[in-house]
Amino acid sequence: MNFCSHCGHTVRFEIPSGDDRPRYLCNECGTIHYQNPRIVAGTLPVRGSRVLLCRRAIPPRHGFWTLPAGYMENAETTLEAAARETREEARAEVEIHGLYTMISLPHINQVYMIFRADLTGGYAAGPESLEVALFEEHEIPWDELAFPTIERTLRHFFADRGNAQFPLHISDITAKDRERYFGSA
Amino acid sequence: MNFCSHCGHTVRFEIPSGDDRPRYLCNECGTIHYQNPRIVAGTLPVRGSRVLLCRRAIPPRHGFWTLPAGYMENAETTLEAAARETREEARAEVEIHGLYTMISLPHINQVYMIFRADLTGGYAAGPESLEVALFEEHEIPWDELAFPTIERTLRHFFADRGNAQFPLHISDITAKDRERYFGSA
Repeated sequence: MNFCSHCGHTVRFEIPSGDDRPRYLCNECGTIHYQNPRIVAGTLPVRGSRVLLCRRAIPPRHGFWTLPAGYMENAETTLEAAARETREEARAEVEIHGLYTMISLPHINQVYMIFRADLTGGYAAGPESLEVALFEEHEIPWDELAFPTIERTLRHFFADRGNAQFPLHISDITAKDRERYFGSA
Repeated sequence: MNFCSHCGHTVRFEIPSGDDRPRYLCNECGTIHYQNPRIVAGTLPVRGSRVLLCRRAIPPRHGFWTLPAGYMENAETTLEAAARETREEARAEVEIHGLYTMISLPHINQVYMIFRADLTGGYAAGPESLEVALFEEHEIPWDELAFPTIERTLRHFFADRGNAQFPLHISDITAKDRERYFGSA
C-alpha cells in the first residue's frame, strides 16, 4: 500500500494513537487503512467411499490436486461461499453437512474453512481446474496435493471415517509447517 | 474506494475480464482491488453458572452489553484473536474450549466466531468497556444487548446448557433480521 484509497495522497506505516500495531495512515485525510485476514471457504465433497479433488489449472500450485475452495466474497455467507467455489471449480452441487476443518495460516493472513458435503449430482472441470475426479483413500495423490490445508483435511477425514464421527478440527499452519511441506523454495 | 492504493491513480468499478462480479480496477496500473469479509472473533467467558459481558465504551452501540469480540488481525490465528479481544475488552484470561457460534452477516461483510471459554482469573473494564460483569441467566440484560449475534449466542448457550452439550451453531443474520432487532433506524 503506497497511496490512500480514499483521497489518493501518500500513506505512512505507523502505530495510530490509541492503537497497538502499525497501520497504513493517510498523510492528508488521516484515514486508517485496516488490513485483515481473508477466509478461504470450500468443501470436502464425498460420494460413497470416494472424495472429489480438482487439479489446479491456475497458479499457485498449477497441476496439483486440491479440494474446491477459494476466497469468500463480500455479501455472501460462509456456506454460500463454500458451495459457490464447489460449483465454480468442480461444476458440482453439494449438500453441506457441517464445518469440518478450520485452519489459521497467520503468515499469509488466511483462515481456511472446509465443510463436509455430499455430492448430489455430476461434476466436471470448471475454468480453474484441469480435471476433477473421485478418489478412494488408497488412490489419493498425497505427493501431488496443492496445499498443506488440503492434506491435513483429508488425513482427518480418513482417520475420522473409521469412527463415523466428524468433529470440527481447529488448527494452525505456521510458516515453519509450510516450509516442511514445500521446502524452503 | 476512489484511488488505487498501489499507484495513486483513479479507479473504476466494473467486472474484470474473466470475473463475474464488479471490483475496483485501477485506470493506470490495472491492479484489481479485491474486498472480502472480515472475521469478528470473540469469546463467551463462563465462570460457574455466570457469563461475562462488557458494556461498550465506544460506538457503535455505546452503553450496550456485548461479549468480548472484535476484528481478527493479520498475523494471528482465530484462537489468538478471540483471546486477545477478551484480554483487551475484559482484562480477562480464558481457557478456550471450542468454536460455538459462527454467524455470517452478508449485508455488512462480517463473519462472527464466538468461542466458548472458561474464565481463569480476574476481569476488569479495558479501554473499550465502561464496565465488565458476570451475569446469571435471569440477570442478562436482553433489551440492552449490543448486537443480534450476541443475543443469539447467549440464547444458544442457555438452551444447550440444560443438555451439557455445546455443538457448533452455524447461522446467518440478514439485513432483514437486523432490522427486526434494531428497528428501521
